[in-house]
Amino acid sequence: MIRFSKAVSSLRTSEIRDLMGLAIRPDIISFAGGMPGNELFPVDEIDEIYNHLPLDIKQTAFQYGPTPGYPPLLESLKEYLKKKGMPVETNNLMITTGSLQAINILGKVFIDPEDTVVTENPCFIGGISAFKSYQANIHGIDLNEDGIDVPSLKASLDRNKSVPPKFLYITPNFHNPAGTLYTEQRKKELVPVLKEHDLPLIEDDAYGELYFDEEARKRVVPMKTLYENELTICYTGTFSKILGPGFRLGWMLVPPEIYQKAELVKQSMDACSPNFTQVLANEFLRSGKMEKYIERMRVIYKRRKDTMAAAIRKYFPDEITWNEPRGGFYIWLKLPPQLDIMTVLKRSIEKGAVFVVGKTFDPEGKDNSHFRLAYSHTPEEKIEKGIQILGDALREALTVVK
Amino acid sequence: MIRFSKAVSSLRTSEIRDLMGLAIRPDIISFAGGMPGNELFPVDEIDEIYNHLPLDIKQTAFQYGPTPGYPPLLESLKEYLKKKGMPVETNNLMITTGSLQAINILGKVFIDPEDTVVTENPCFIGGISAFKSYQANIHGIDLNEDGIDVPSLKASLDRNKSVPPKFLYITPNFHNPAGTLYTEQRKKELVPVLKEHDLPLIEDDAYGELYFDEEARKRVVPMKTLYENELTICYTGTFSKILGPGFRLGWMLVPPEIYQKAELVKQSMDACSPNFTQVLANEFLRSGKMEKYIERMRVIYKRRKDTMAAAIRKYFPDEITWNEPRGGFYIWLKLPPQLDIMTVLKRSIEKGAVFVVGKTFDPEGKDNSHFRLAYSHTPEEKIEKGIQILGDALREALTVVK
Repeated sequence: MIRFSKAVSSLRTSEIRDLMGLAIRPDIISFAGGMPGNELFPVDEIDEIYNHLPLDIKQTAFQYGPTPGYPPLLESLKEYLKKKGMPVETNNLMITTGSLQAINILGKVFIDPEDTVVTENPCFIGGISAFKSYQANIHGIDLNEDGIDVPSLKASLDRNKSVPPKFLYITPNFHNPAGTLYTEQRKKELVPVLKEHDLPLIEDDAYGELYFDEEARKRVVPMKTLYENELTICYTGTFSKILGPGFRLGWMLVPPEIYQKAELVKQSMDACSPNFTQVLANEFLRSGKMEKYIERMRVIYKRRKDTMAAAIRKYFPDEITWNEPRGGFYIWLKLPPQLDIMTVLKRSIEKGAVFVVGKTFDPEGKDNSHFRLAYSHTPEEKIEKGIQILGDALREALTVVK
Repeated sequence: MIRFSKAVSSLRTSEIRDLMGLAIRPDIISFAGGMPGNELFPVDEIDEIYNHLPLDIKQTAFQYGPTPGYPPLLESLKEYLKKKGMPVETNNLMITTGSLQAINILGKVFIDPEDTVVTENPCFIGGISAFKSYQANIHGIDLNEDGIDVPSLKASLDRNKSVPPKFLYITPNFHNPAGTLYTEQRKKELVPVLKEHDLPLIEDDAYGELYFDEEARKRVVPMKTLYENELTICYTGTFSKILGPGFRLGWMLVPPEIYQKAELVKQSMDACSPNFTQVLANEFLRSGKMEKYIERMRVIYKRRKDTMAAAIRKYFPDEITWNEPRGGFYIWLKLPPQLDIMTVLKRSIEKGAVFVVGKTFDPEGKDNSHFRLAYSHTPEEKIEKGIQILGDALREALTVVK
């Protein structure tokens, strides 16, 4: 008999894996995966970079690198973040194997079994699974149009003063799955609450570069930039949405005290992130190719969002409510209370379209009142078709209910 | 005040990081790092592979992949392991971010805080840090010329029946740091002991491909192949020594029950290993380029070992004892009891050569009666020079003692 650890005994198979299986079937239009479209990757740019690498840099790409990252990439990224006003001088930067690893490492740095951590509800599935893998109790606070519900957060923290949570984890820019872009006001309101409770913040900024308009551009300024001097903030970012997830490169920018622990954890996890992809990412960033690429992507993702939004208005019953995102990958839609999303999903898959049901993003795995549509990896012509299929499935399910 | 988890509170800065800093200084001859030489990497082969990838495969390389690995690589690797007689049909294969991640994941699957795990002493530093990061107590059993000391292991297990350890972790082929190649007999003797105590085995086979002679080739057959039906064996391997550590690709071949847990852990750690390097590794393996490359490497590493062994005989005082390895990267040397290795290391660095002291590989971080020399990443002309420097440092230290 195998005696598993307590940490893994409680882990259950994630439903998202089966959905991803469907998502890659060519006969199904997928709004499921939170990833760029394959046709959008900067293949030509990376080809050019690869074929111009000097031999000694290529050899370095094959070798182990320092645990915190390939030094030239750390430098380039520091410059990049500095230009955005981020406090790179008083914090430490570390390259991680995707930003999920950064979130996981921070989970390990803070969480003891049975500790509470606070997240938004809904929440990025990777955050949920990372924190649960350290046996945390996750307390989800409602996310509304302007950001996390601060009065609810405050009430919860006040109520649990004797067993304070270890941190708050949020995604202020184009939230996954909710698409929410925090208002300046909402971020400001968070500060005194976190200060009062001495609560560290993990700020996940996977989508901040992908704004669709000028006002959104102004609003994506990280809390790490705005409130560095008032709060303890661990900031995470990723190359997955601005280069390619297959590079498995993310980063964390954190205070030195936390960095020291994080480096030791990373050292014991995978020693270092792939030098091979770090060398390429460095050239992509340093050459200015990345900024140009991101500019192109903003236009394409906005067009996909516009197409999906127009199709939703055209094909979905009025009972489905939603907000139009100003950036990122996702639209988050609310069902009328009597409608069972699992029935809709089943019909929709039969007809040839797939998406992710809301409970996937509920830390308690229960609330199925919403569903997530990703427009990021589906070409426009398929978006309209897929939304029509889903609209039919929703109408049918509504008729049955009525 | 930041409230860190108990798991990280006990982690201390590893000394190996500072040594690695020295190891890359061009003015110092390094026998420190356990890595291939930069000049040995199959850069031309990978260039050719990269430039012949069809666009759709390149795009796949930029994308997320399934958590257990890029399916074509899993297939190729399965074929490869099957040819070696490994039980790929009744076990599950998973690609990991280096084999360190495989070992770390297995640590998480088995270890609760304060659990005991058993390793060889000395032991791979990555194993020590992975298991400690889950708050394990590591019980090291002496490793001698033929493998782990089985009577000591048995005595320890018998003594601790009330609190049995979670697993035994060993590296039977060209051990890091000890260079040991287990005898068939020693592996056989292990079986009844593990069976009696129902103790799972983690078998780390990072170096098995790098044998130097025909008898060694016959002896590298994994316990996973020999004793699959009698024991619970988690087998780990890596591309780090047969392609490049910068690819960050390793694997585990484990029973389905363990695989299920391991997959969930990996999903929460980094979602998947880099597709970019998996695509390249797959072509390297599938095309037959890898086997040819490994054949070349065996010759080169043997030559480096021969050079180092000859230089040691020439320059080291007779008081230093050691065994000649039959494969792998390392020579492990024993000091006379009165000699302080830290003094030798200091002198040696001043004179321009660096290596790793024994206590780095002691689970308790104390035993400094040995030191490790890696010949893998140092060209022959530098090996002789470096060993001469180190020989001088050893003689000087001995003279002082006498």
